[in-house]
Amino acid sequence: MGRTDRRAVLQGMGSLAALGLGGSAGWARDRARQTGRKLGYAVVGLGYYATQQIMPQFRNCEFAKLTALVSGTPEKLARYGAEYDIPRTHRYDYQSYDRMSANPDIDIVYVVLPNAMHAEYTVRAAQAGKHVLCEKPMATSSAECRMMIAACREAGKKLMIGYRSRFEPYNRLAIDLARSGHVGPSRVITAQHGFPISPDQWRLDRDMAGGGSLMDIGIYSLNAARYLTGEEPTYISAVESTDRSDPRFREVEDRIDWEMLFPSGVLASCVSSYSSPHNAYRVTGTQGWIDLEPATQYSGQAMRVSKGGTIEPRSPVEPGKNQFVGQLDHLAECVVTEREPIVPGEEGLRDLVAIEAIYRSAREGRRVAVAAV
Amino acid sequence: MGRTDRRAVLQGMGSLAALGLGGSAGWARDRARQTGRKLGYAVVGLGYYATQQIMPQFRNCEFAKLTALVSGTPEKLARYGAEYDIPRTHRYDYQSYDRMSANPDIDIVYVVLPNAMHAEYTVRAAQAGKHVLCEKPMATSSAECRMMIAACREAGKKLMIGYRSRFEPYNRLAIDLARSGHVGPSRVITAQHGFPISPDQWRLDRDMAGGGSLMDIGIYSLNAARYLTGEEPTYISAVESTDRSDPRFREVEDRIDWEMLFPSGVLASCVSSYSSPHNAYRVTGTQGWIDLEPATQYSGQAMRVSKGGTIEPRSPVEPGKNQFVGQLDHLAECVVTEREPIVPGEEGLRDLVAIEAIYRSAREGRRVAVAAV
Repeated sequence: MGRTDRRAVLQGMGSLAALGLGGSAGWARDRARQTGRKLGYAVVGLGYYATQQIMPQFRNCEFAKLTALVSGTPEKLARYGAEYDIPRTHRYDYQSYDRMSANPDIDIVYVVLPNAMHAEYTVRAAQAGKHVLCEKPMATSSAECRMMIAACREAGKKLMIGYRSRFEPYNRLAIDLARSGHVGPSRVITAQHGFPISPDQWRLDRDMAGGGSLMDIGIYSLNAARYLTGEEPTYISAVESTDRSDPRFREVEDRIDWEMLFPSGVLASCVSSYSSPHNAYRVTGTQGWIDLEPATQYSGQAMRVSKGGTIEPRSPVEPGKNQFVGQLDHLAECVVTEREPIVPGEEGLRDLVAIEAIYRSAREGRRVAVAAV
Repeated sequence: MGRTDRRAVLQGMGSLAALGLGGSAGWARDRARQTGRKLGYAVVGLGYYATQQIMPQFRNCEFAKLTALVSGTPEKLARYGAEYDIPRTHRYDYQSYDRMSANPDIDIVYVVLPNAMHAEYTVRAAQAGKHVLCEKPMATSSAECRMMIAACREAGKKLMIGYRSRFEPYNRLAIDLARSGHVGPSRVITAQHGFPISPDQWRLDRDMAGGGSLMDIGIYSLNAARYLTGEEPTYISAVESTDRSDPRFREVEDRIDWEMLFPSGVLASCVSSYSSPHNAYRVTGTQGWIDLEPATQYSGQAMRVSKGGTIEPRSPVEPGKNQFVGQLDHLAECVVTEREPIVPGEEGLRDLVAIEAIYRSAREGRRVAVAAV
């Protein structure tokens, strides 16, 4: 191995180590690079998130490319098919979906459908012999999550959940700082996520969404508390507040806040809202705090660190890949290098188990233990 | 009434209106000014807070002066008596305390003792014919609070609790902005208060303190949620986390976090900690938020307001009186003008009722309704 190659491998190791992939991953990334082939993604569900946030990012990917589209709306298939140069043979609807099995240009299916459809289209993708990237929340129940994990395992295919913040440089830095005790051992986490939701959309339909703000945006508070500690909650205590006379909230909850106790003793105080704007979290240790606001937006993250009596802004040393690109590339790399994604199906399952505990606690007015996964 | 007098009265009205005293208070303040006499305070308990924070502020007061001292430590009486020019006849210990009844230079007794002593020394002060300003928490139980209120009422004396933040200009501005719907109707309040406590002090002694971080510092989160909404909580759900192997926490709790639901539907998510630094609150409405950090420190408050997509710092139009001065003057004014303080004994009682609900919820692992006071 020449001097330049070795440096490239070491850089790759450093970068993957930051993703939590461990030391030998540099070699793996190197191998992925050497294959010279980008893996092909089929994007399923051509709504705002898919078409405006995800699809434009493929052009910046190192290991992933967009090769197919799935939609129930012919006009969308025509429009985005033309825009992204996807041949008619690579455009599917929900009836022809399973015929993707015969298309060798599709390696990975990215499920960006309403929550209630995640399970079915993940299972069908696995059965069609494709790896799956599925948006969060992984499904509308932990039972569905288990079914999805089993289906992918049976098919010998990888399953990853779209926790993009785990690929976002400020969030990665926050994880590093929090877990390394930069402000002392963590004691309290506060996390707030919410926005005033517009009426008339599937997110307000219980059958489609599986729940309200918690399923859609509060899950960021939950997931952040879990990735900032690296622990699973022991028990949860939640309170809901929903104005049922507001036409948006006939079927799903507006606000739901909860406390989570972690095995190390960390207490997380989390907010989820469909009627007020929130996007922030803070890890407070014995000696100070690490604050991200905005924390999990598509862009614009900012960090402040309070330590030794001074508050200072902080940025990642390297800007790093855009979170959408990082996510798309990660699963492609994992497929090529035969590694598990850092956010596999089990990660989605753990959030759903906690979400079910949060709902149950709010409903029953008591503390609820969280089952181990 | 001349033009200048009228202007002075109107200014007084504006200033008192901001304290929540209503329109006719300008006349009252004017009358207080005209008496030309400052009311005399006896400070009881010469610890750090009394000697370093409160006593130096009398020199800036308009209606209050320091006329007597009470301490069990003769050296302290000698030292501070000399420093503040308090004659020997106006220095008391806990045996001679009741003889203050014969001293016409004492109008108000300010109880700055450990929590467990508040009830006894408030009752004895009222029985000695003095008005009382008592530090928060008002007592170690709601039963004690009721006794204190009854004793002062029976003696025909005023009772005020030392909620200094209600006299602090940034907090007053936050109340105005939140309650007037500056960022839309309030939906979520988050409030965090805490500090890493040093070992070996009365605050860690359950008999003296009545509890841990919640009694001492978490009460600021509780009180803020109440004054920012102007409402009383309906029910409370709390979780505690204390490392009992930490020698500081053999008797009292470290962290206790809780959710509070208010009648308007506002959810408050509150943090209290004796092992990590926190001093902030935020009111989030449908259109933005009002953030104070630091929120309730002795000084240095800072506000940011997020509205219409921009975040901007904000300050009170007038700097206003220092919170300690405002508090000392307020009770003196109330005595002269025969008005009720904005933070009477009932305010302290309501906090204690909520504190008892928080402890009970954490202990029993269930949501607890808060009794109306």
